[in-house]
Amino acid sequence: MISSSRTQDNSLRPVTMKRNCIMHAEGSCLISCGNTKVLCTASVEDKVPPFLRGSGKGWVTAEYALLPRSTAVRVPRDSVKGRINGRSQEIQRLIGRSLRAAVDLEALGERCITLDCDVLQADGGTRTASITGAYVALVDALRWLRGTGAFEKLPLRSQVAAVSVGKVDGRLLLDLCYDEDSSAEVDFNVVMNGHGDFVEVQGTGEGGVFSRAEMNGMLDLAASGISELMEAQWTTLDWHDEEAW
Amino acid sequence: MISSSRTQDNSLRPVTMKRNCIMHAEGSCLISCGNTKVLCTASVEDKVPPFLRGSGKGWVTAEYALLPRSTAVRVPRDSVKGRINGRSQEIQRLIGRSLRAAVDLEALGERCITLDCDVLQADGGTRTASITGAYVALVDALRWLRGTGAFEKLPLRSQVAAVSVGKVDGRLLLDLCYDEDSSAEVDFNVVMNGHGDFVEVQGTGEGGVFSRAEMNGMLDLAASGISELMEAQWTTLDWHDEEAW
Amino acid sequence: MISSSRTQDNSLRPVTMKRNCIMHAEGSCLISCGNTKVLCTASVEDKVPPFLRGSGKGWVTAEYALLPRSTAVRVPRDSVKGRINGRSQEIQRLIGRSLRAAVDLEALGERCITLDCDVLQADGGTRTASITGAYVALVDALRWLRGTGAFEKLPLRSQVAAVSVGKVDGRLLLDLCYDEDSSAEVDFNVVMNGHGDFVEVQGTGEGGVFSRAEMNGMLDLAASGISELMEAQWTTLDWHDEEAW
Amino acid sequence: MISSSRTQDNSLRPVTMKRNCIMHAEGSCLISCGNTKVLCTASVEDKVPPFLRGSGKGWVTAEYALLPRSTAVRVPRDSVKGRINGRSQEIQRLIGRSLRAAVDLEALGERCITLDCDVLQADGGTRTASITGAYVALVDALRWLRGTGAFEKLPLRSQVAAVSVGKVDGRLLLDLCYDEDSSAEVDFNVVMNGHGDFVEVQGTGEGGVFSRAEMNGMLDLAASGISELMEAQWTTLDWHDEEAW
Amino acid sequence: MISSSRTQDNSLRPVTMKRNCIMHAEGSCLISCGNTKVLCTASVEDKVPPFLRGSGKGWVTAEYALLPRSTAVRVPRDSVKGRINGRSQEIQRLIGRSLRAAVDLEALGERCITLDCDVLQADGGTRTASITGAYVALVDALRWLRGTGAFEKLPLRSQVAAVSVGKVDGRLLLDLCYDEDSSAEVDFNVVMNGHGDFVEVQGTGEGGVFSRAEMNGMLDLAASGISELMEAQWTTLDWHDEEAW
Amino acid sequence: MISSSRTQDNSLRPVTMKRNCIMHAEGSCLISCGNTKVLCTASVEDKVPPFLRGSGKGWVTAEYALLPRSTAVRVPRDSVKGRINGRSQEIQRLIGRSLRAAVDLEALGERCITLDCDVLQADGGTRTASITGAYVALVDALRWLRGTGAFEKLPLRSQVAAVSVGKVDGRLLLDLCYDEDSSAEVDFNVVMNGHGDFVEVQGTGEGGVFSRAEMNGMLDLAASGISELMEAQWTTLDWHDEEAW
Repeated sequence: MISSSRTQDNSLRPVTMKRNCIMHAEGSCLISCGNTKVLCTASVEDKVPPFLRGSGKGWVTAEYALLPRSTAVRVPRDSVKGRINGRSQEIQRLIGRSLRAAVDLEALGERCITLDCDVLQADGGTRTASITGAYVALVDALRWLRGTGAFEKLPLRSQVAAVSVGKVDGRLLLDLCYDEDSSAEVDFNVVMNGHGDFVEVQGTGEGGVFSRAEMNGMLDLAASGISELMEAQWTTLDWHDEEAW
Repeated sequence: MISSSRTQDNSLRPVTMKRNCIMHAEGSCLISCGNTKVLCTASVEDKVPPFLRGSGKGWVTAEYALLPRSTAVRVPRDSVKGRINGRSQEIQRLIGRSLRAAVDLEALGERCITLDCDVLQADGGTRTASITGAYVALVDALRWLRGTGAFEKLPLRSQVAAVSVGKVDGRLLLDLCYDEDSSAEVDFNVVMNGHGDFVEVQGTGEGGVFSRAEMNGMLDLAASGISELMEAQWTTLDWHDEEAW
Repeated sequence: MISSSRTQDNSLRPVTMKRNCIMHAEGSCLISCGNTKVLCTASVEDKVPPFLRGSGKGWVTAEYALLPRSTAVRVPRDSVKGRINGRSQEIQRLIGRSLRAAVDLEALGERCITLDCDVLQADGGTRTASITGAYVALVDALRWLRGTGAFEKLPLRSQVAAVSVGKVDGRLLLDLCYDEDSSAEVDFNVVMNGHGDFVEVQGTGEGGVFSRAEMNGMLDLAASGISELMEAQWTTLDWHDEEAW
Repeated sequence: MISSSRTQDNSLRPVTMKRNCIMHAEGSCLISCGNTKVLCTASVEDKVPPFLRGSGKGWVTAEYALLPRSTAVRVPRDSVKGRINGRSQEIQRLIGRSLRAAVDLEALGERCITLDCDVLQADGGTRTASITGAYVALVDALRWLRGTGAFEKLPLRSQVAAVSVGKVDGRLLLDLCYDEDSSAEVDFNVVMNGHGDFVEVQGTGEGGVFSRAEMNGMLDLAASGISELMEAQWTTLDWHDEEAW
Repeated sequence: MISSSRTQDNSLRPVTMKRNCIMHAEGSCLISCGNTKVLCTASVEDKVPPFLRGSGKGWVTAEYALLPRSTAVRVPRDSVKGRINGRSQEIQRLIGRSLRAAVDLEALGERCITLDCDVLQADGGTRTASITGAYVALVDALRWLRGTGAFEKLPLRSQVAAVSVGKVDGRLLLDLCYDEDSSAEVDFNVVMNGHGDFVEVQGTGEGGVFSRAEMNGMLDLAASGISELMEAQWTTLDWHDEEAW
Repeated sequence: MISSSRTQDNSLRPVTMKRNCIMHAEGSCLISCGNTKVLCTASVEDKVPPFLRGSGKGWVTAEYALLPRSTAVRVPRDSVKGRINGRSQEIQRLIGRSLRAAVDLEALGERCITLDCDVLQADGGTRTASITGAYVALVDALRWLRGTGAFEKLPLRSQVAAVSVGKVDGRLLLDLCYDEDSSAEVDFNVVMNGHGDFVEVQGTGEGGVFSRAEMNGMLDLAASGISELMEAQWTTLDWHDEEAW
């Protein structure tokens, strides 16, 4: 049995990604990071949001939801409450921004790709797992579009992956599970691209605060974790550099 | 590779059920019927709906939803539209009624079990697969409750499973896939218990109508399919009759 | 005074239908089945739902609601709760399907007929009374359309009516009133057409289950009740067979 | 056939009121004013809104809705749109205030009476017909409460009725039908009590404006119409002054 | 410091209006009446509601809301509750009707002006202050439109302002503050135009009732208060009669 | 006239804060940062959210909204759309977290302080201005509570303020106005406490990405801006260190 826990403070939890797991979607990936499991699908539509109509530019957007029993205590469905909860909205906006950073929207053309990230089992890091898995689904959807003759070269600007880091009892930890996350004094979600630049950095110190030095320590940890996740994406996608850059 | 299609008009599509697939739920089952895949979880709560408070009786209820890309064309989330669509409501009410028929609510005691049926991939028969899979999750949740000392004998009245049948181009078919279902003149969903009685029969002839004779033919087909599904439930659950009856 | 109760297990409650009771509607019928009173109106619009635009085909749909004090205990309005409750949705979907079975949608042409069934007083069997009364309103709306030159022959495929049957204390009863319905072990709603075929059969055994033999007994009862209701529709509509078939 | 129109500028349209028309309600009245028909029911509940709990005082509130096809063009249900429209809210607040003026809320005791006014057919003056009809339903609900021993004398402060008046093409008209109302330059809704005092006056001049003299002319017309309506209430209720004052 | 209270029963509370206080709006006015402060903005859009499309006529509409802590006890936001409360809807409909009376909608042309009235601090009379302040914002928006060449003469039919009056402990008072308003037996909101005609009169006697004589006394008070408010509008707007009439 | 623009890349726009501007609120502050104006109120309630009941701990939460015409193009109210938009939810969650970092929730006791941040005029940096202004309102609400005897020493852990920084055309700019913000390649919102530690860092590079070096440059700029804002808070609040720490 594969362990679901990290072996060291600076190592990732075991990661697996399964491509093409949903028959209808143009791209799909079931990602596991430790016990966290997220089903990511990419859906291609030939229409864009109103603000882009006629612009020739495409769009990438995301939706995120927890299945009711993905969590230790069952959470009511948003549909029952009649509105998307604030946390989910915040997360799906982050996923959308992060994946848009991966795509050349002009080269994509007037199309929309929707990334649905549905958490089947939650144990910390669901938003960063969503970003990492959605990237795989996105690339397969772009390959599908290439297959239809939409373009010759995949309209990718860069690879994108994400991980969480935190300070727990004064220790800096990579890829927090739920128990670690809920006792963390500081919690960072870091999204990077394949050139080692940052796409998004969100650091929160609700229970505590953090110094510049601690922040630097956490960003170092994140960079090493993301580099490992990118290799896993590469392998899963059976990637050839000439596909895009 | 396992085929996803029926070998004969009167045979089921290949069925698999995977128990205990979600770590947080008291019971869970991932059921596949052909290409249809539904994740069923059972959640136990120590409170009942207002109309049962103080009655000593328990309750079993269900929620049903399609993941956005479980279908050929992406369906918007109910949470985005702010309400549960009519079809989902109708289905989750059917699932709830069917599983309540399996349980002795008095012996369950003042507890509520919620069965969440989330369709990961849809190819016809999602509501009947939900019922058949939810039964497995339900039994495991009852075993979990027994483990906590809630009761000695599982409060089950009977086994419950369901299947669809239909008339397509004049032929009676068992366990329709989506393409068959959408061209069916008549569509039946049949829920039965382990004693060969009916729990629910819903027959609809929107494109056509049906005679008593055709109805009898379809119910015969359903009964044979349900009997096979019950054996699969038995095996999956590693069942011993002395557990309940 | 007309009695509101059945004289025998296999007889209908007293039925009355009043046509053209609402001045603005293209068709309308106030139907009473025992103490149950439903106001049915048919509204013609020159537009169809998006999925039919440009198809040349028409549509028939239904909405169903209880007035707040149609019931023994006042029910809050759906508008106050901000959503249609599940039971009403399920019922209005059934009414819509049943009446579509009565109409040749191609011959109707690209028009929509909405059947509003508002329960003024509820005493069991509101969904089947809605179907039976809505058929009368529908025919009058089709006659109104014929008067405008939309077609020469009414685009009807068949007559449609509905009734409930149930098993109460082991007895099979036709056309249940509320008290009988709430103590029934099995409850069937049966919709048939004028050729003696079934349009829809919904049988539910929440409190109990039912055998094939019992089902057959209930369907026999339903068939005889529906035949009587169809005569009443005929008389109310002052029908001439050459109008449609 | 009874005409639905006024014989003179200063006469009411034909008025009828039918009491006890809904079996479940503690009070009910189907009122017709010309072609306008409103079903008013009064429902008694043994609880009051939060701001009155423990005060010993009661409450009277109202809800108003148009049935979808009460109007010339079908109006969508508020439940479908997920919210009560502004016009209905404004009207039901007016009905509630007007009927509260009729009741001694202290003597009513900690109970709530809900007046549901559902318009079956609309031809102008639906809000004033609702007030006039709801008064009848309210009195019968109070009599029902007296029958249960809640009080000995009906807790009524006064009789209440309402009518509309307007200026159409420079002429002052009583009790406008829809066609008159929609071409009116000025539209007044007037609610009075049995002592000739005003409970509510709402005058609107969207298309035009009005002088003090015109206002006085309209209030005179209203007073005479209301006096006639009060007699009709009296007769309908078979009223004896010693019941309350 | 300027006092926030009336010096006599028949005098207004101190009034101030500040024009052009919001940089983005085509017109804006921050009005204070005693402690009541309302921010009114006028927004011009080149589209009209569906019922006016292609008619060549324009539209004026209003929205009204209380900031959560404009009141003594914090009120929840409508957005949190998911619907506009009834009182706000009623008020914004009144504001819209009143300001439409000020404008020649034909001469405005196919444009919509939305008047947003947001109450920053509430101390009685917020709806009448909204009307009086919105008039100032509206005129500046029309001047802005004139500057774009939309028309040469401002499409105004008349000046419009509003005030409340009431009967408190038997005394007739002009321009009630919150404490007076909540203990008033009768409460009038009066909207007049610059020719001394009434645009809207709404008188409510929930706690009490009122005679014709009392009504006349209140309308006299209102007329004198409105005349004073119109002078203040004139001064604020630096008005020249040749601008419109 | 005070200029609304920055004099240098590393200087703040002109800042003003006006305390006690809303009579009903326990604390209030109207903050201007350049042309951005936010009205912040603090409301004290003697109850806490369910998850804190009986814990003895208090809570601080925030709500954020744009007035419809605070922006260049009018934005529809959330109440009209029936739900809070995602951006507002994300911002109000950020404000809440930031201000909770300022307060010792145990010492606050079982009370809730709600910070309402309503943007009257928007020109970039509304979320950071909200945090900076809300801190002032919060401190005054705590002083008000101290006045009621709730505690002797203000339950503050630290001062909190926030500012935005960005990279525009390769230049690092402090305190972006709307035009700068919308053309920024990278946008940081930084919240710090009075000890120079970070409370929250949110950096987004939708149009671009950023290196560690650029991030450090932006954090330096933010730290200097926040230090200046803290002095302004100090002066506005007329602060004495012995009040809390």
